[in-house]
Amino acid sequence: MKLHEVAELIGGKVIGDSATEITGIGKIETAGETEITFVSNPVYEKYFGGTNAGAVVVSHKFNPTHHPRLDDRIVPLVQVEDPYLSFLTLLDYFSPQTELQKVGIDETAIVRDSADISSEEVRIGSHCFIGEKVKIGSRVTILPNAVIMAGAVIGDDVLIYPNVTIYNGCKIGNRVIIHAGTVIGSDGFGQAKNPDGTFMKIPQKGIVVIEDDVEIGSNCSIDRATMGETIIRKGVKLDNMIQIAHNVEIGENTVIAAQSGVAGSTKIGKNCMIGGKVGIVGHISICDGVILTAATNVSKSITAPGMYSGYRSQPMRAELRQEATIRALNKKK
Amino acid sequence: MKLHEVAELIGGKVIGDSATEITGIGKIETAGETEITFVSNPVYEKYFGGTNAGAVVVSHKFNPTHHPRLDDRIVPLVQVEDPYLSFLTLLDYFSPQTELQKVGIDETAIVRDSADISSEEVRIGSHCFIGEKVKIGSRVTILPNAVIMAGAVIGDDVLIYPNVTIYNGCKIGNRVIIHAGTVIGSDGFGQAKNPDGTFMKIPQKGIVVIEDDVEIGSNCSIDRATMGETIIRKGVKLDNMIQIAHNVEIGENTVIAAQSGVAGSTKIGKNCMIGGKVGIVGHISICDGVILTAATNVSKSITAPGMYSGYRSQPMRAELRQEATIRALNKKK
Amino acid sequence: MKLHEVAELIGGKVIGDSATEITGIGKIETAGETEITFVSNPVYEKYFGGTNAGAVVVSHKFNPTHHPRLDDRIVPLVQVEDPYLSFLTLLDYFSPQTELQKVGIDETAIVRDSADISSEEVRIGSHCFIGEKVKIGSRVTILPNAVIMAGAVIGDDVLIYPNVTIYNGCKIGNRVIIHAGTVIGSDGFGQAKNPDGTFMKIPQKGIVVIEDDVEIGSNCSIDRATMGETIIRKGVKLDNMIQIAHNVEIGENTVIAAQSGVAGSTKIGKNCMIGGKVGIVGHISICDGVILTAATNVSKSITAPGMYSGYRSQPMRAELRQEATIRALNKKK
Repeated sequence: MKLHEVAELIGGKVIGDSATEITGIGKIETAGETEITFVSNPVYEKYFGGTNAGAVVVSHKFNPTHHPRLDDRIVPLVQVEDPYLSFLTLLDYFSPQTELQKVGIDETAIVRDSADISSEEVRIGSHCFIGEKVKIGSRVTILPNAVIMAGAVIGDDVLIYPNVTIYNGCKIGNRVIIHAGTVIGSDGFGQAKNPDGTFMKIPQKGIVVIEDDVEIGSNCSIDRATMGETIIRKGVKLDNMIQIAHNVEIGENTVIAAQSGVAGSTKIGKNCMIGGKVGIVGHISICDGVILTAATNVSKSITAPGMYSGYRSQPMRAELRQEATIRALNKKK
Repeated sequence: MKLHEVAELIGGKVIGDSATEITGIGKIETAGETEITFVSNPVYEKYFGGTNAGAVVVSHKFNPTHHPRLDDRIVPLVQVEDPYLSFLTLLDYFSPQTELQKVGIDETAIVRDSADISSEEVRIGSHCFIGEKVKIGSRVTILPNAVIMAGAVIGDDVLIYPNVTIYNGCKIGNRVIIHAGTVIGSDGFGQAKNPDGTFMKIPQKGIVVIEDDVEIGSNCSIDRATMGETIIRKGVKLDNMIQIAHNVEIGENTVIAAQSGVAGSTKIGKNCMIGGKVGIVGHISICDGVILTAATNVSKSITAPGMYSGYRSQPMRAELRQEATIRALNKKK
Repeated sequence: MKLHEVAELIGGKVIGDSATEITGIGKIETAGETEITFVSNPVYEKYFGGTNAGAVVVSHKFNPTHHPRLDDRIVPLVQVEDPYLSFLTLLDYFSPQTELQKVGIDETAIVRDSADISSEEVRIGSHCFIGEKVKIGSRVTILPNAVIMAGAVIGDDVLIYPNVTIYNGCKIGNRVIIHAGTVIGSDGFGQAKNPDGTFMKIPQKGIVVIEDDVEIGSNCSIDRATMGETIIRKGVKLDNMIQIAHNVEIGENTVIAAQSGVAGSTKIGKNCMIGGKVGIVGHISICDGVILTAATNVSKSITAPGMYSGYRSQPMRAELRQEATIRALNKKK
């Protein structure tokens, strides 16, 4: 494929030899001479001088004379508005998603008679279990050894990876992706203390609702509500190993990085960005637009948007000032 | 069902219209006019004035005149000793547990000939694996795709959710619940360093013992002992994603919240309450009756009951004083 | 078996009655009179006086007269160079690994026709799924309900426990052990923000490469690279519930304890020792020979070997000095 054809795919302008042969994509550090790469983050511009890539997708602002080549080669450029988004298009073009599962229900999958499965392009892998009265929408893919318990409802265009468990009655929206090993709907951690020190299990009768366009990483646990619903709103993106306790609500388009946890009945707003290993206690609210840096612990409600940080969360600026104070004291000694 | 009939179920006294029709239960914020709700935690009393619930279960201390209604409706009350426990009874009454698995061994489950399975009401789901010489007691439910490896012993009335793995030789008591994705008996993390910097695996020959009445959340890992036993004592309750290392012992009726971890050979006492994201190093002991707040890290043995807290754990009071000192210093600047 | 025969197995010298009958092994606190135990860590020497063990493996430096017996029994010793390593040999001798799976492919396993499986002593358990074009080497054991997706490559002598998921195209070296519930190759957490606040999934086209002699605990998640490879180098040992993000590289013989996480594109050197619950942000490097104590958070690259610690990591010494400063201030008040 010639470089000018590649440029057409992304609406870009070629600077240099537009007949350069491109066969694939690569990272700027390692791309070969028939691969195209990109520079978006300025941190990576330093690699421009040494890259072996056949061509580089860049923004209109990128000036190659600021990053002199180590050899004499004139590297063809493709100028675009947003090199990163353009590169994603090329990524999909050159490495199309392989078909993970054939259309149809594998003969070793168990599907209960009362389950209601769309006739449109559903893929169910080997040794899956689809319980009584489960509903499954169109173009859903469920990979081997996943378990969907009785009464669960799954929308259209959902992708469920192997060894996922969805408990009874939980509801999954459209275009949801759930990675391997994740558990949706396990019992909330509700235990009432008896006078003799033992505990009585509080029945967990609610469900989990996952709205449209949510992606959930691998080995997450999202507990069902005691009553009512644990809700993951539209467009939320969860990384791996995230714990969402009973009756939590996560607002639209909030993203949470790996190993974070949210305790029972807490409500998190929209458009929040929550780093990895963050802990949020139960029964509080976090308003819209809050950013929590990695490893922050939150024990009180947050009512103003902004960035928060620290072992006991504070607004980022206060947290950094405090750090500096301690360090200064330390040096004086 | 009339309200006076509901009151009888929980031994309560109706104040108001005892003929009110009740069809279900709900949360005070969202319950409808034929649903009954409750107030136990005073924090929720503020919702009393606006609730649409048909009736409210309250304690003898609750005084409705302190929480004036937003409309003119006189909301019927049911007075009981402990509204929360009474409400749990109603929760079970109005939403009985559905049968998760039919009695019998699913024809797609693999059960080795030498396994010894009680003839009394055992339920084994599709695609389970029950290894050689496994023993399974009466009224045990094992849901689809769980794996019970050779020689494991499972008591009576145990409930094992899908995709659980129990390694060879581990022992599970009576009335134990294990949620989906949890692993019992994986190898302890034992690696002996060789002179060349590589590591030699230390064989892990012990087992895990889970005593009676334990509940374990989803996606937990409890490692087998190097020699001897990793022990989870009677009545312990573990939330999701908890890591229990080799040779650990957790004392009776201790509860641990999600994402906490206990390192190798540490012994935790009885009746401890351990918050979420707590880390406890190896080879120490925590005495009975210790409370560790969320995100506490413990690196030394604790020998007196009480509440401990902090990035490096201290008695709660010292920890808070230290926080205040730092904040004060910060303001002076 | 007589004690002198046991001593021969480990090249040791008997001090005392070499005809003592030994039938097994035990811990020094609990070993019975026909069991042999060991003392390596001086912390455990205090148990020597009271042990009921039939014999004790000790180093040449161990002097029994420093640890007087509580009774009159003269406990036979076996002197060796390294009591711990010698004891591991005895551990293997007295508790040999049981066969976890019979040779052959279980008839309920699904193996796609295009998969290439070694004819030499491969064991594949019930209800496993082996996808299209998967390659599996000699003497590999895959336990029940594991899923190996299309195009994955597995070396020789690999042991994969139940309910593991290996995504398409990932490469596993020789002599690798992967414990139950672990997920290799789930999508990296890549989401590009759209102007309206929603997110677009960045396709994750790379793979995970696990080199030779790696052991991975239970319920870990290792994400595939966006492009290229997430790499776990030769001899790395990972405990349970560890999160390794996309494009991370972990250097040879580095060990990481449970519940730690490494964010995207970070590179960790060789021979590092990383404690439990450690968090390492993305896009940094940690040089060879770094030790991170438990619960350390690292947000900047580390360029000198040594020990680092703290909620915001510092060299261990600075961290401890700071702690002392704060405590002193606190007392003055």
